[in-house]
Amino acid sequence: MDALGYYNGKWGPLDEMTVPMNDRGCYFGDGVYDAASSANGVIFTLDEHVDRFFDSARLLEIKLDYSREELKKILNEMLSKVTRGTYLVYWQATRGTSRRYHAFPPGPPNLWIIIKPIAIPDLSKKIKLITVEDTRYLHCNIKTLNLIPNIIALQRSEEAGCQEAIFHRGETVTEGSKSNVHILKNGTFITHPANNWILKGVARNHLLSACGRMGIPAEERPFTLSQMFDADEVFISGTATFGRPADTINGKNVGGKAPELLKKIQDEVMGEFIKETGYEPPVR
Amino acid sequence: MDALGYYNGKWGPLDEMTVPMNDRGCYFGDGVYDAASSANGVIFTLDEHVDRFFDSARLLEIKLDYSREELKKILNEMLSKVTRGTYLVYWQATRGTSRRYHAFPPGPPNLWIIIKPIAIPDLSKKIKLITVEDTRYLHCNIKTLNLIPNIIALQRSEEAGCQEAIFHRGETVTEGSKSNVHILKNGTFITHPANNWILKGVARNHLLSACGRMGIPAEERPFTLSQMFDADEVFISGTATFGRPADTINGKNVGGKAPELLKKIQDEVMGEFIKETGYEPPVR
Repeated sequence: MDALGYYNGKWGPLDEMTVPMNDRGCYFGDGVYDAASSANGVIFTLDEHVDRFFDSARLLEIKLDYSREELKKILNEMLSKVTRGTYLVYWQATRGTSRRYHAFPPGPPNLWIIIKPIAIPDLSKKIKLITVEDTRYLHCNIKTLNLIPNIIALQRSEEAGCQEAIFHRGETVTEGSKSNVHILKNGTFITHPANNWILKGVARNHLLSACGRMGIPAEERPFTLSQMFDADEVFISGTATFGRPADTINGKNVGGKAPELLKKIQDEVMGEFIKETGYEPPVR
Repeated sequence: MDALGYYNGKWGPLDEMTVPMNDRGCYFGDGVYDAASSANGVIFTLDEHVDRFFDSARLLEIKLDYSREELKKILNEMLSKVTRGTYLVYWQATRGTSRRYHAFPPGPPNLWIIIKPIAIPDLSKKIKLITVEDTRYLHCNIKTLNLIPNIIALQRSEEAGCQEAIFHRGETVTEGSKSNVHILKNGTFITHPANNWILKGVARNHLLSACGRMGIPAEERPFTLSQMFDADEVFISGTATFGRPADTINGKNVGGKAPELLKKIQDEVMGEFIKETGYEPPVR
Protein backbone atom coordinates (compact mmCIF):
# COMPACT_ATOMS: atom_id res chain seq x y z
CA MET A 1 0.00 0.00 0.00
CA ASP A 2 1.55 3.34 -0.97
CA ALA A 3 -0.79 5.52 1.12
CA LEU A 4 -3.02 4.62 4.05
CA GLY A 5 -6.11 6.15 5.57
CA TYR A 6 -7.44 5.39 9.06
CA TYR A 7 -10.67 6.48 10.73
CA ASN A 8 -11.68 5.41 14.23
CA GLY A 9 -10.14 1.97 13.97
CA LYS A 10 -10.90 1.26 10.30
CA TRP A 11 -8.07 1.53 7.80
CA GLY A 12 -7.33 0.88 4.16
CA PRO A 13 -5.92 2.43 0.98
CA LEU A 14 -6.18 6.21 1.47
CA ASP A 15 -8.00 6.93 -1.78
CA GLU A 16 -10.79 4.48 -0.91
CA MET A 17 -11.47 5.62 2.66
CA THR A 18 -14.71 7.35 3.61
CA VAL A 19 -15.94 9.18 6.71
CA PRO A 20 -19.39 10.19 7.96
CA MET A 21 -20.84 13.34 6.41
CA ASN A 22 -21.82 14.38 9.96
CA ASP A 23 -18.20 14.53 11.18
CA ARG A 24 -17.72 18.10 12.42
CA GLY A 25 -14.49 18.28 10.44
CA CYS A 26 -16.58 18.18 7.28
CA TYR A 27 -18.62 21.37 7.76
CA PHE A 28 -16.87 23.44 10.49
CA GLY A 29 -13.22 22.41 10.05
CA ASP A 30 -13.66 21.66 13.75
CA GLY A 31 -10.50 19.76 14.53
CA VAL A 32 -6.77 19.82 15.22
CA TYR A 33 -3.96 17.93 13.58
CA ASP A 34 -0.28 17.23 13.61
CA ALA A 35 2.16 15.58 11.25
CA ALA A 36 5.65 14.14 11.45
CA SER A 37 8.11 12.82 8.91
CA SER A 38 9.36 9.25 8.94
CA ALA A 39 12.00 7.13 7.28
CA ASN A 40 12.58 3.38 7.51
CA GLY A 41 9.47 2.96 9.64
CA VAL A 42 10.70 5.40 12.32
CA ILE A 43 8.66 8.55 13.03
CA PHE A 44 10.99 11.48 13.73
CA THR A 45 10.42 13.48 16.94
CA LEU A 46 7.12 11.68 17.47
CA ASP A 47 6.89 12.57 21.17
CA GLU A 48 7.17 16.28 20.39
CA HIS A 49 4.49 16.10 17.71
CA VAL A 50 2.17 14.09 19.94
CA ASP A 51 2.70 16.56 22.79
CA ARG A 52 1.87 19.47 20.49
CA PHE A 53 -1.22 17.62 19.21
CA PHE A 54 -2.48 17.11 22.75
CA ASP A 55 -1.82 20.78 23.40
CA SER A 56 -3.78 21.83 20.28
CA ALA A 57 -6.67 19.62 21.39
CA ARG A 58 -6.58 21.11 24.90
CA LEU A 59 -6.61 24.67 23.51
CA LEU A 60 -9.58 23.83 21.27
CA GLU A 61 -11.29 21.94 24.11
CA ILE A 62 -11.44 18.65 22.19
CA LYS A 63 -11.41 15.92 24.82
CA LEU A 64 -9.20 13.15 23.45
CA ASP A 65 -10.24 9.75 24.76
CA TYR A 66 -6.83 8.05 24.38
CA SER A 67 -3.41 8.52 25.91
CA ARG A 68 -0.24 9.71 24.21
CA GLU A 69 1.09 6.15 24.38
CA GLU A 70 -2.06 4.71 22.78
CA LEU A 71 -1.91 7.25 19.97
CA LYS A 72 1.77 6.58 19.30
CA LYS A 73 1.07 2.85 19.19
CA ILE A 74 -1.67 3.32 16.56
CA LEU A 75 0.50 5.66 14.47
CA ASN A 76 3.42 3.24 14.51
CA GLU A 77 1.14 0.32 13.73
CA MET A 78 -0.36 2.12 10.72
CA LEU A 79 3.07 3.17 9.48
CA SER A 80 4.15 -0.48 9.56
CA LYS A 81 1.46 -1.28 6.96
CA VAL A 82 2.89 0.85 4.15
CA THR A 83 5.83 0.10 1.89
CA ARG A 84 9.24 1.01 3.31
CA GLY A 85 10.38 4.57 2.47
CA THR A 86 9.96 8.16 3.62
CA TYR A 87 6.42 9.01 4.70
CA LEU A 88 4.43 11.84 6.16
CA VAL A 89 2.48 10.57 9.16
CA TYR A 90 -0.46 12.94 9.55
CA TRP A 91 -3.31 12.65 12.06
CA GLN A 92 -6.23 14.78 13.13
CA ALA A 93 -8.93 14.78 15.79
CA THR A 94 -12.33 16.24 14.97
CA ARG A 95 -14.78 17.13 17.72
CA GLY A 96 -17.23 14.33 16.96
CA THR A 97 -20.06 13.22 14.75
CA SER A 98 -23.42 14.92 15.02
CA ARG A 99 -25.87 16.87 12.91
CA ARG A 100 -24.58 20.35 12.15
CA TYR A 101 -24.99 22.66 15.13
CA HIS A 102 -22.36 25.12 16.36
CA ALA A 103 -22.15 24.30 20.08
CA PHE A 104 -20.17 21.23 21.16
CA PRO A 105 -21.68 17.74 20.87
CA PRO A 106 -21.06 15.28 23.73
CA GLY A 107 -18.32 13.53 21.71
CA PRO A 108 -16.33 11.31 21.45
CA PRO A 109 -13.84 12.87 19.02
CA ASN A 110 -12.88 11.10 15.81
CA LEU A 111 -9.32 10.03 15.02
CA TRP A 112 -8.15 10.29 11.43
CA ILE A 113 -4.74 9.21 10.11
CA ILE A 114 -3.23 9.79 6.69
CA ILE A 115 0.09 8.20 5.77
CA LYS A 116 1.54 9.10 2.39
CA PRO A 117 4.93 9.27 0.69
CA ILE A 118 6.98 12.40 1.25
CA ALA A 119 10.23 13.65 -0.24
CA ILE A 120 12.89 14.85 2.19
CA PRO A 121 14.07 18.07 0.52
CA ASP A 122 17.68 18.61 -0.53
CA LEU A 123 18.61 21.57 1.68
CA SER A 124 21.29 22.75 -0.72
CA LYS A 125 18.60 23.51 -3.33
CA LYS A 126 17.31 27.04 -2.87
CA ILE A 127 13.66 28.05 -3.12
CA LYS A 128 11.76 31.13 -4.20
CA LEU A 129 9.30 32.93 -1.94
CA ILE A 130 6.56 35.50 -2.18
CA THR A 131 5.10 37.64 0.59
CA VAL A 132 1.39 37.74 1.44
CA GLU A 133 -0.46 39.94 3.93
CA ASP A 134 -1.39 37.82 6.96
CA THR A 135 -5.17 38.04 7.24
CA ARG A 136 -5.55 34.91 9.38
CA TYR A 137 -7.33 34.61 12.69
CA LEU A 138 -5.51 35.20 15.96
CA HIS A 139 -5.17 31.51 16.92
CA CYS A 140 -2.24 30.54 14.69
CA ASN A 141 -0.58 28.86 17.68
CA ILE A 142 -3.20 26.08 17.44
CA LYS A 143 -2.77 23.57 14.62
CA THR A 144 -6.38 23.51 13.42
CA LEU A 145 -8.15 22.46 10.23
CA ASN A 146 -9.18 26.08 9.45
CA LEU A 147 -6.55 26.56 6.77
CA ILE A 148 -8.16 28.57 3.96
CA PRO A 149 -5.78 31.56 4.14
CA ASN A 150 -2.84 29.15 4.15
CA ILE A 151 -3.95 27.26 1.05
CA ILE A 152 -4.72 30.50 -0.81
CA ALA A 153 -1.25 31.81 0.07
CA LEU A 154 0.50 28.66 -1.17
CA GLN A 155 -1.60 28.74 -4.32
CA ARG A 156 -0.50 32.35 -4.97
CA SER A 157 3.09 31.28 -4.44
CA GLU A 158 2.83 28.42 -6.95
CA GLU A 159 1.14 30.70 -9.49
CA ALA A 160 4.19 32.96 -9.15
CA GLY A 161 6.51 29.99 -9.79
CA CYS A 162 7.61 29.94 -6.14
CA GLN A 163 7.64 27.28 -3.43
CA GLU A 164 6.31 29.07 -0.35
CA ALA A 165 4.44 32.22 0.72
CA ILE A 166 5.61 34.20 3.73
CA PHE A 167 2.92 35.96 5.77
CA HIS A 168 3.41 39.41 7.27
CA ARG A 169 1.13 41.47 9.53
CA GLY A 170 1.89 44.93 8.31
CA GLU A 171 5.69 45.18 8.45
CA THR A 172 6.16 42.19 10.76
CA VAL A 173 7.03 38.84 9.19
CA THR A 174 5.17 35.99 10.92
CA GLU A 175 5.58 32.57 9.21
CA GLY A 176 5.09 30.66 5.98
CA SER A 177 1.83 29.13 4.71
CA LYS A 178 3.11 25.71 5.85
CA SER A 179 6.44 26.48 7.45
CA ASN A 180 8.22 28.75 9.90
CA VAL A 181 10.60 31.35 8.50
CA HIS A 182 13.91 32.48 9.98
CA ILE A 183 16.80 34.76 9.12
CA LEU A 184 20.49 34.91 9.83
CA LYS A 185 21.98 38.36 10.36
CA ASN A 186 25.51 39.12 11.52
CA GLY A 187 25.90 35.60 12.83
CA THR A 188 22.61 35.56 14.77
CA PHE A 189 19.64 33.27 14.15
CA ILE A 190 16.38 35.27 14.40
CA THR A 191 12.83 33.86 14.38
CA HIS A 192 9.39 35.19 15.33
CA PRO A 193 8.49 34.51 18.98
CA ALA A 194 6.08 31.62 19.58
CA ASN A 195 2.93 33.60 20.30
CA ASN A 196 -0.57 33.38 18.76
CA TRP A 197 0.69 34.74 15.40
CA ILE A 198 2.64 31.60 14.50
CA LEU A 199 2.73 27.87 15.01
CA LYS A 200 5.55 26.73 17.28
CA GLY A 201 7.17 24.37 14.78
CA VAL A 202 9.01 21.28 15.98
CA ALA A 203 11.73 21.83 13.35
CA ARG A 204 11.89 25.48 14.53
CA ASN A 205 12.50 24.24 18.09
CA HIS A 206 15.26 21.96 16.83
CA LEU A 207 16.91 24.80 14.90
CA LEU A 208 16.89 26.88 18.09
CA SER A 209 18.33 24.01 20.13
CA ALA A 210 20.97 23.35 17.47
CA CYS A 211 22.07 26.99 17.66
CA GLY A 212 22.20 26.70 21.46
CA ARG A 213 24.38 23.60 21.33
CA MET A 214 26.77 25.16 18.81
CA GLY A 215 27.06 28.53 20.56
CA ILE A 216 25.30 30.40 17.73
CA PRO A 217 23.36 33.39 19.13
CA ALA A 218 19.61 32.86 18.64
CA GLU A 219 16.85 35.37 19.22
CA GLU A 220 13.10 34.83 19.28
CA ARG A 221 11.90 38.27 18.26
CA PRO A 222 9.82 39.79 15.46
CA PHE A 223 11.65 40.94 12.34
CA THR A 224 10.38 43.15 9.55
CA LEU A 225 9.97 42.68 5.83
CA SER A 226 12.91 44.97 5.14
CA GLN A 227 15.07 43.10 7.66
CA MET A 228 14.16 39.87 5.85
CA PHE A 229 15.09 41.31 2.45
CA ASP A 230 18.35 42.57 3.97
CA ALA A 231 19.22 39.36 5.91
CA ASP A 232 22.35 37.29 5.32
CA GLU A 233 20.18 34.18 4.88
CA VAL A 234 16.39 33.60 4.78
CA PHE A 235 15.21 30.03 5.31
CA ILE A 236 12.15 28.01 6.19
CA SER A 237 11.56 24.94 8.29
CA GLY A 238 8.75 22.42 8.52
CA THR A 239 7.90 18.82 9.24
CA ALA A 240 10.44 17.39 6.82
CA THR A 241 12.34 20.59 6.00
CA PHE A 242 15.18 21.26 8.40
CA GLY A 243 16.20 24.69 7.14
CA ARG A 244 15.80 25.41 3.45
CA PRO A 245 17.16 28.72 2.14
CA ALA A 246 15.56 31.12 -0.34
CA ASP A 247 17.39 32.95 -3.08
CA THR A 248 14.54 35.25 -4.11
CA ILE A 249 11.50 36.85 -2.49
CA ASN A 250 8.98 38.53 -4.80
CA GLY A 251 11.60 38.14 -7.52
CA LYS A 252 14.30 40.08 -5.62
CA ASN A 253 17.56 38.36 -4.70
CA VAL A 254 17.94 37.65 -1.00
CA GLY A 255 20.37 35.88 1.32
CA GLY A 256 23.35 33.85 0.20
CA LYS A 257 25.70 35.83 2.46
CA ALA A 258 26.23 33.29 5.25
CA PRO A 259 26.25 29.88 3.54
CA GLU A 260 28.69 28.27 5.97
CA LEU A 261 26.78 29.23 9.09
CA LEU A 262 23.56 28.09 7.45
CA LYS A 263 25.04 24.73 6.49
CA LYS A 264 26.33 24.21 10.03
CA ILE A 265 22.79 24.65 11.41
CA GLN A 266 21.17 22.53 8.65
CA ASP A 267 23.66 19.71 9.14
CA GLU A 268 23.08 19.67 12.88
CA VAL A 269 19.30 19.21 12.55
CA MET A 270 19.44 16.93 9.51
CA GLY A 271 21.98 14.92 11.53
CA GLU A 272 19.34 14.36 14.20
CA PHE A 273 16.88 13.09 11.57
CA ILE A 274 19.51 10.76 10.09
CA LYS A 275 20.55 9.49 13.53
CA GLU A 276 16.98 8.82 14.71
CA THR A 277 15.60 7.25 11.52
CA GLY A 278 18.64 5.81 9.74
CA TYR A 279 17.71 7.89 6.68
CA GLU A 280 20.35 7.87 3.95
CA PRO A 281 20.30 11.05 1.89
CA PRO A 282 20.58 10.27 -1.82
CA VAL A 283 23.96 11.02 -3.35
CA ARG A 284 23.44 14.37 -5.10
CA MET B 1 -37.02 10.61 5.90
CA ASP B 2 -36.56 13.31 8.55
CA ALA B 3 -33.12 14.45 7.40
CA LEU B 4 -31.36 13.98 4.09
CA GLY B 5 -27.74 14.02 3.00
CA TYR B 6 -26.54 14.39 -0.59
CA TYR B 7 -23.02 14.13 -2.02
CA ASN B 8 -22.24 14.47 -5.73
CA GLY B 9 -25.49 12.87 -6.87
CA LYS B 10 -25.83 10.24 -4.14
CA TRP B 11 -28.38 10.82 -1.40
CA GLY B 12 -29.91 9.08 1.58
CA PRO B 13 -30.68 9.44 5.28
CA LEU B 14 -28.29 12.10 6.59
CA ASP B 15 -26.90 10.05 9.47
CA GLU B 16 -25.86 7.23 7.12
CA MET B 17 -24.11 9.30 4.45
CA THR B 18 -20.36 9.12 3.94
CA VAL B 19 -17.85 11.15 1.93
CA PRO B 20 -14.27 10.50 0.76
CA MET B 21 -11.59 11.12 3.37
CA ASN B 22 -9.66 12.95 0.63
CA ASP B 23 -12.33 15.65 0.20
CA ARG B 24 -10.55 18.96 0.89
CA GLY B 25 -13.37 19.95 3.19
CA CYS B 26 -12.22 17.21 5.57
CA TYR B 27 -8.70 18.48 6.32
CA PHE B 28 -8.55 22.15 5.20
CA GLY B 29 -12.17 23.28 5.69
CA ASP B 30 -11.66 24.27 2.04
CA GLY B 31 -15.17 25.11 0.95
CA VAL B 32 -18.06 27.54 0.97
CA TYR B 33 -21.67 27.03 1.94
CA ASP B 34 -25.06 28.64 2.15
CA ALA B 35 -28.34 27.75 3.80
CA ALA B 36 -31.96 28.81 3.47
CA SER B 37 -35.10 28.08 5.44
CA SER B 38 -38.10 26.34 3.94
CA ALA B 39 -41.69 25.59 4.80
CA ASN B 40 -44.22 23.48 2.93
CA GLY B 41 -41.58 22.45 0.39
CA VAL B 42 -40.79 26.06 -0.60
CA ILE B 43 -37.28 27.41 -0.05
CA PHE B 44 -37.45 31.04 1.07
CA THR B 45 -35.36 33.60 -0.86
CA LEU B 46 -33.58 30.78 -2.68
CA ASP B 47 -32.32 32.99 -5.50
CA GLU B 48 -30.61 35.32 -3.04
CA HIS B 49 -28.94 32.46 -1.21
CA VAL B 50 -27.80 30.83 -4.46
CA ASP B 51 -26.42 34.16 -5.68
CA ARG B 52 -24.48 34.60 -2.44
CA PHE B 53 -23.20 31.02 -2.68
CA PHE B 54 -21.90 31.63 -6.19
CA ASP B 55 -20.29 34.81 -4.92
CA SER B 56 -18.59 32.98 -2.03
CA ALA B 57 -17.30 30.37 -4.49
CA ARG B 58 -15.99 33.08 -6.81
CA LEU B 59 -14.20 34.85 -3.94
CA LEU B 60 -12.59 31.58 -2.85
CA GLU B 61 -11.82 30.67 -6.48
CA ILE B 62 -13.82 27.43 -6.37
CA LYS B 63 -14.96 26.80 -9.93
CA LEU B 64 -18.53 25.51 -9.71
CA ASP B 65 -19.36 23.23 -12.61
CA TYR B 66 -23.14 23.77 -12.53
CA SER B 67 -25.43 26.72 -13.12
CA ARG B 68 -27.62 28.49 -10.59
CA GLU B 69 -30.67 26.88 -12.21
CA GLU B 70 -29.16 23.40 -11.99
CA LEU B 71 -28.30 23.89 -8.32
CA LYS B 72 -31.78 25.18 -7.50
CA LYS B 73 -33.30 22.20 -9.25
CA ILE B 74 -31.23 19.74 -7.18
CA LEU B 75 -32.01 21.57 -3.91
CA ASN B 76 -35.74 21.56 -4.64
CA GLU B 77 -35.63 17.92 -5.69
CA MET B 78 -33.88 16.89 -2.47
CA LEU B 79 -36.27 18.95 -0.36
CA SER B 80 -39.18 17.10 -1.98
CA LYS B 81 -37.86 13.82 -0.52
CA VAL B 82 -38.26 14.75 3.15
CA THR B 83 -41.42 14.81 5.22
CA ARG B 84 -43.47 18.01 4.94
CA GLY B 85 -42.53 20.68 7.52
CA THR B 86 -40.02 23.45 8.15
CA TYR B 87 -36.49 22.57 7.06
CA LEU B 88 -33.07 24.07 6.81
CA VAL B 89 -31.73 23.52 3.30
CA TYR B 90 -27.93 23.68 3.62
CA TRP B 91 -25.38 23.09 0.88
CA GLN B 92 -21.64 23.41 0.47
CA ALA B 93 -19.03 23.18 -2.25
CA THR B 94 -15.57 21.88 -1.37
CA ARG B 95 -12.65 22.40 -3.71
CA GLY B 96 -12.33 18.78 -4.76
CA THR B 97 -10.98 15.39 -3.80
CA SER B 98 -7.25 14.81 -3.74
CA ARG B 99 -4.50 13.79 -1.40
CA ARG B 100 -3.73 16.53 1.11
CA TYR B 101 -1.65 19.29 -0.47
CA HIS B 102 -2.22 23.01 0.03
CA ALA B 103 -2.29 24.32 -3.55
CA PHE B 104 -5.44 23.84 -5.61
CA PRO B 105 -6.20 20.47 -7.25
CA PRO B 106 -7.63 20.49 -10.80
CA GLY B 107 -11.15 19.87 -9.41
CA PRO B 108 -14.05 19.32 -9.94
CA PRO B 109 -15.59 20.65 -6.70
CA ASN B 110 -17.85 18.44 -4.60
CA LEU B 111 -21.49 19.33 -3.88
CA TRP B 112 -22.85 18.47 -0.44
CA ILE B 113 -26.44 19.02 0.72
CA ILE B 114 -27.88 18.64 4.20
CA ILE B 115 -31.62 18.98 4.77
CA LYS B 116 -32.81 18.81 8.36
CA PRO B 117 -35.77 20.01 10.44
CA ILE B 118 -35.60 23.56 11.74
CA ALA B 119 -37.79 25.54 14.12
CA ILE B 120 -38.92 28.98 12.98
CA PRO B 121 -38.34 31.07 16.13
CA ASP B 122 -41.15 32.95 17.85
CA LEU B 123 -39.92 36.54 17.45
CA SER B 124 -41.81 37.72 20.52
CA LYS B 125 -39.60 35.51 22.73
CA LYS B 126 -36.50 37.41 23.79
CA ILE B 127 -33.02 35.95 23.92
CA LYS B 128 -29.91 36.49 26.03
CA LEU B 129 -26.57 37.41 24.53
CA ILE B 130 -22.92 37.52 25.52
CA THR B 131 -20.11 39.48 23.89
CA VAL B 132 -16.89 37.88 22.62
CA GLU B 133 -13.78 39.52 21.21
CA ASP B 134 -13.73 38.98 17.44
CA THR B 135 -10.46 37.14 16.71
CA ARG B 136 -11.57 35.80 13.33
CA TYR B 137 -9.76 36.17 10.03
CA LEU B 138 -10.43 39.12 7.74
CA HIS B 139 -12.60 37.22 5.23
CA CYS B 140 -15.87 37.16 7.16
CA ASN B 141 -17.70 38.33 4.03
CA ILE B 142 -17.15 34.86 2.52
CA LYS B 143 -19.34 32.06 3.86
CA THR B 144 -16.60 29.43 4.32
CA LEU B 145 -16.24 26.23 6.32
CA ASN B 146 -13.52 27.76 8.54
CA LEU B 147 -15.80 28.29 11.52
CA ILE B 148 -13.81 27.45 14.64
CA PRO B 149 -14.06 30.92 16.27
CA ASN B 150 -17.82 30.89 15.58
CA ILE B 151 -18.43 27.53 17.22
CA ILE B 152 -16.28 28.45 20.24
CA ALA B 153 -18.26 31.69 20.62
CA LEU B 154 -21.64 29.93 20.48
CA GLN B 155 -20.38 27.33 22.95
CA ARG B 156 -19.35 30.13 25.37
CA SER B 157 -22.81 31.63 24.96
CA GLU B 158 -24.58 28.35 25.76
CA GLU B 159 -22.32 27.77 28.77
CA ALA B 160 -23.50 31.19 30.02
CA GLY B 161 -27.15 30.16 29.53
CA CYS B 162 -27.51 32.45 26.50
CA GLN B 163 -28.59 31.92 22.89
CA GLU B 164 -26.01 33.84 20.87
CA ALA B 165 -22.57 35.45 21.13
CA ILE B 166 -21.94 38.87 19.63
CA PHE B 167 -18.45 39.55 18.26
CA HIS B 168 -16.70 42.88 18.65
CA ARG B 169 -13.35 44.08 17.31
CA GLY B 170 -12.21 46.32 20.12
CA GLU B 171 -15.16 48.67 20.70
CA THR B 172 -16.84 47.96 17.35
CA VAL B 173 -19.66 45.42 17.27
CA THR B 174 -19.46 43.23 14.16
CA GLU B 175 -21.96 40.33 14.10
CA GLY B 176 -23.14 37.22 15.92
CA SER B 177 -21.54 33.76 15.80
CA LYS B 178 -24.30 32.67 13.40
CA SER B 179 -26.35 35.82 12.89
CA ASN B 180 -26.14 39.51 12.10
CA VAL B 181 -26.85 41.97 14.91
CA HIS B 182 -28.70 45.28 14.66
CA ILE B 183 -29.91 48.06 16.94
CA LEU B 184 -32.75 50.55 16.96
CA LYS B 185 -31.93 53.99 18.35
CA ASN B 186 -34.21 57.03 18.25
CA GLY B 187 -36.30 55.47 15.49
CA THR B 188 -33.32 54.51 13.30
CA PHE B 189 -32.27 50.97 12.30
CA ILE B 190 -28.46 50.63 12.51
CA THR B 191 -26.37 47.68 11.32
CA HIS B 192 -22.67 47.13 10.59
CA PRO B 193 -21.74 47.87 6.96
CA ALA B 194 -21.30 44.85 4.71
CA ASN B 195 -17.49 44.77 4.53
CA ASN B 196 -15.02 41.95 5.23
CA TRP B 197 -15.79 42.00 8.97
CA ILE B 198 -19.28 40.52 8.58
CA LEU B 199 -21.36 38.25 6.39
CA LYS B 200 -23.94 40.10 4.33
CA GLY B 201 -26.96 38.23 5.63
CA VAL B 202 -29.99 37.69 3.43
CA ALA B 203 -32.32 38.36 6.38
CA ARG B 204 -30.25 41.51 7.11
CA ASN B 205 -30.88 42.66 3.51
CA HIS B 206 -34.59 42.06 3.96
CA LEU B 207 -34.65 44.01 7.23
CA LEU B 208 -32.96 46.92 5.44
CA SER B 209 -35.43 46.73 2.54
CA ALA B 210 -38.37 46.50 4.94
CA CYS B 211 -37.20 49.68 6.65
CA GLY B 212 -36.89 51.35 3.25
CA ARG B 213 -40.41 50.37 2.23
CA MET B 214 -41.87 51.59 5.52
CA GLY B 215 -39.95 54.87 5.65
CA ILE B 216 -37.91 53.85 8.70
CA PRO B 217 -34.45 55.46 8.59
CA ALA B 218 -31.77 52.78 8.19
CA GLU B 219 -28.02 53.24 8.44
CA GLU B 220 -25.26 50.80 7.57
CA ARG B 221 -22.53 52.02 9.91
CA PRO B 222 -20.41 50.58 12.71
CA PHE B 223 -21.76 50.93 16.25
CA THR B 224 -19.92 50.41 19.52
CA LEU B 225 -20.46 48.11 22.46
CA SER B 226 -21.69 50.99 24.61
CA GLN B 227 -24.10 52.11 21.86
CA MET B 228 -25.43 48.55 21.77
CA PHE B 229 -25.92 48.45 25.55
CA ASP B 230 -27.63 51.83 25.32
CA ALA B 231 -29.83 51.04 22.27
CA ASP B 232 -33.64 51.08 22.28
CA GLU B 233 -33.66 47.54 20.87
CA VAL B 234 -30.92 44.98 20.09
CA PHE B 235 -31.87 42.15 17.77
CA ILE B 236 -30.34 39.45 15.60
CA SER B 237 -31.25 37.99 12.22
CA GLY B 238 -30.33 34.82 10.41
CA THR B 239 -31.51 32.22 7.94
CA ALA B 240 -34.78 31.53 9.79
CA THR B 241 -34.65 34.39 12.28
CA PHE B 242 -36.23 37.55 10.95
CA GLY B 243 -35.35 39.89 13.81
CA ARG B 244 -35.21 38.42 17.31
CA PRO B 245 -34.66 40.82 20.21
CA ALA B 246 -32.41 40.42 23.25
CA ASP B 247 -33.32 41.41 26.77
CA THR B 248 -29.88 40.91 28.32
CA ILE B 249 -26.25 41.06 27.19
CA ASN B 250 -23.63 39.72 29.60
CA GLY B 251 -26.42 39.64 32.18
CA LYS B 252 -27.23 43.38 31.86
CA ASN B 253 -30.70 44.45 30.76
CA VAL B 254 -30.82 45.90 27.25
CA GLY B 255 -33.43 47.12 24.78
CA GLY B 256 -37.16 46.90 25.27
CA LYS B 257 -37.62 50.62 24.61
CA ALA B 258 -39.04 50.50 21.06
CA PRO B 259 -41.21 47.36 20.94
CA GLU B 260 -43.72 48.78 18.45
CA LEU B 261 -41.14 49.83 15.90
CA LEU B 262 -39.40 46.48 16.29
CA LYS B 263 -42.64 44.57 15.77
CA LYS B 264 -43.42 46.58 12.64
CA ILE B 265 -40.08 45.54 11.11
CA GLN B 266 -40.36 41.91 12.25
CA ASP B 267 -43.89 41.59 10.87
CA GLU B 268 -42.86 43.00 7.51
CA VAL B 269 -40.10 40.42 6.99
CA MET B 270 -41.96 37.50 8.61
CA GLY B 271 -44.81 38.47 6.30
CA GLU B 272 -42.56 37.87 3.30
CA PHE B 273 -41.69 34.42 4.61
CA ILE B 274 -45.35 33.58 5.20
CA LYS B 275 -46.35 34.91 1.79
CA GLU B 276 -43.64 33.03 -0.11
CA THR B 277 -43.89 29.68 1.71
CA GLY B 278 -47.45 29.55 3.05
CA TYR B 279 -46.01 29.03 6.52
CA GLU B 280 -48.61 29.20 9.31
CA PRO B 281 -47.12 30.40 12.58
CA PRO B 282 -48.36 28.30 15.50
CA VAL B 283 -50.98 30.01 17.66
CA ARG B 284 -49.00 31.25 20.67
